[in-house]
Amino acid sequence: MKAIVFDNGLKLDNNYPKPKPNEGEALIRVTLAGICNTDYEITKGYMGYVGILGHEFVGVVEEVNSSNREDSKWLGKRVVAEISYGCDDPSCEWCAKKNYRHCPKRHTLGIWRKDGCFAEYLTMPLKVLFEVPDKVKDEQAVFVEPLAAACEITEQLHIEPMFKVLVLGDGKLGLTTALALHAQNVDVLLVGKHQNKLEIAQAQGLKTQLLHEFIPQKIYDVVVEATGTASGFETSMALTKPRGTLVLKSTVATGKELNLAPIVIDEITVLGSRCGQFPPALRLLENNRIDFSRMISKIYTIDKAIEAFEANKLKDTIKILVKM
Amino acid sequence: MKAIVFDNGLKLDNNYPKPKPNEGEALIRVTLAGICNTDYEITKGYMGYVGILGHEFVGVVEEVNSSNREDSKWLGKRVVAEISYGCDDPSCEWCAKKNYRHCPKRHTLGIWRKDGCFAEYLTMPLKVLFEVPDKVKDEQAVFVEPLAAACEITEQLHIEPMFKVLVLGDGKLGLTTALALHAQNVDVLLVGKHQNKLEIAQAQGLKTQLLHEFIPQKIYDVVVEATGTASGFETSMALTKPRGTLVLKSTVATGKELNLAPIVIDEITVLGSRCGQFPPALRLLENNRIDFSRMISKIYTIDKAIEAFEANKLKDTIKILVKM
Repeated sequence: MKAIVFDNGLKLDNNYPKPKPNEGEALIRVTLAGICNTDYEITKGYMGYVGILGHEFVGVVEEVNSSNREDSKWLGKRVVAEISYGCDDPSCEWCAKKNYRHCPKRHTLGIWRKDGCFAEYLTMPLKVLFEVPDKVKDEQAVFVEPLAAACEITEQLHIEPMFKVLVLGDGKLGLTTALALHAQNVDVLLVGKHQNKLEIAQAQGLKTQLLHEFIPQKIYDVVVEATGTASGFETSMALTKPRGTLVLKSTVATGKELNLAPIVIDEITVLGSRCGQFPPALRLLENNRIDFSRMISKIYTIDKAIEAFEANKLKDTIKILVKM
Repeated sequence: MKAIVFDNGLKLDNNYPKPKPNEGEALIRVTLAGICNTDYEITKGYMGYVGILGHEFVGVVEEVNSSNREDSKWLGKRVVAEISYGCDDPSCEWCAKKNYRHCPKRHTLGIWRKDGCFAEYLTMPLKVLFEVPDKVKDEQAVFVEPLAAACEITEQLHIEPMFKVLVLGDGKLGLTTALALHAQNVDVLLVGKHQNKLEIAQAQGLKTQLLHEFIPQKIYDVVVEATGTASGFETSMALTKPRGTLVLKSTVATGKELNLAPIVIDEITVLGSRCGQFPPALRLLENNRIDFSRMISKIYTIDKAIEAFEANKLKDTIKILVKM
């Protein structure tokens, strides 16, 4: 099968072996996949991963390997999948809570010990599959994984109705986060550097501001750092009110000396936030509370996937999708 | 009066004007004061403070200026004082909660817009005074302020009974924090570099370990960073289990590039923690649950206070007290 493989360089492999589902797994034909900045980080060495890239996808179940006959219900279903699965050992506190992403023996699609979704086929355990509601198109469903990561904030943190929330950064991470919070009736302001990106949020009713016009004030109960830069982190500290929460969403080394004293002086909470569970994200899509169509910069075929990865690096690009 | 003044250098002033209490304030004769590392940081420029240094003290009320006759009950009382007081404007959300330390118009004893306690006299508002129980000696009561800061952790964070807690750093901050948590029946391990300091904790029943004998494992629900160094912060991140809490107690610029990605990957909470309220700290002392006597390295008279500040810098020093 065709697959985009990272192994000391990114390449399209036209003859990658088609995977076979293990017991309890489905074989899924990928229809559409999204490029995430984590994929780009991996090509720079993040996680030391080698294999098929990609973890954002929507696809159709073509085969089920299960001793439980009921599992055949998955055949032909259009699905998405949470990206990590754990050991399911009864002694594992994380698997017991289905919090697979923290299982020390986890596999993570396209990131850690598991071939990813930039391929014609992939396998995933049935336990992490979710059916996509009929009314949600592939071009929306492919955003479920980053949308779930955005919804994770409200799982970790009680955002009270009167809270002022600021999202810093208007890349795909910041946009998705701001849209997800707004869709949950949170009072959110998105601050970024790109008028064209802010307009996408504005069109869905969000308050936005250009960074150079924004007057920084230490008044926000919650600040989401979504720039992935050291200066963004410092700005976020300066905007978080005493006893407020700075949500850290981007996994980027700062490459800069940092003064963490403001965290102590203002007794700020810095909350690391990574992936999320899919059901609340699917509910937002099913109820049509978010529209990702304007975030799609371009759709490439898998044959042009290397080109797609190059396009992902451009400043004006938001989301690049790859069609199998 | 005699006072230790920082103004582009530290000096003993034998003729500093004796302060006069404003309405609602007491004049307090200081009997004993403690040197905190924050004092040392101030002499290096922290907060840009100029004035009498010091914020840890015990003293006796000699004069009360109040239109409320009942306030005369404070006369002759042995007292300690929370170090910040706010504007008390009805519109101030922080003062409404008596959370004076975050009031934007606050004064903080010896740190911010308010002469400190390394002097024969100071004034403080009656609203931040606490009477010291008779059975608590001055040499213990002088530790109330750092002890309250340690108790702050349990105000900010629910430490569940089965949690494993690690305190990193055996300076006065780490020792006080570990002793305070242990005194509240928390399962705490103190890790540090100095056998002599660890022994002080051991003598009160704490588990301790020398850093070079300690095997780092990512298994602690709560890690308190009390080394004040960038490497201590990195070690703390590596010891905090996924979804755990790293309590940041020291206000030190890292002076080093930091990789904050572990916070996101493990979804760690970094909780900045500063000062605390005095009643729980006074209860610990009144019930004799902590003994600070072995933490006192030496007591100097105010005439030798410059020498005392020099002694505070020595590696083996724990707490230096100054007697007025």
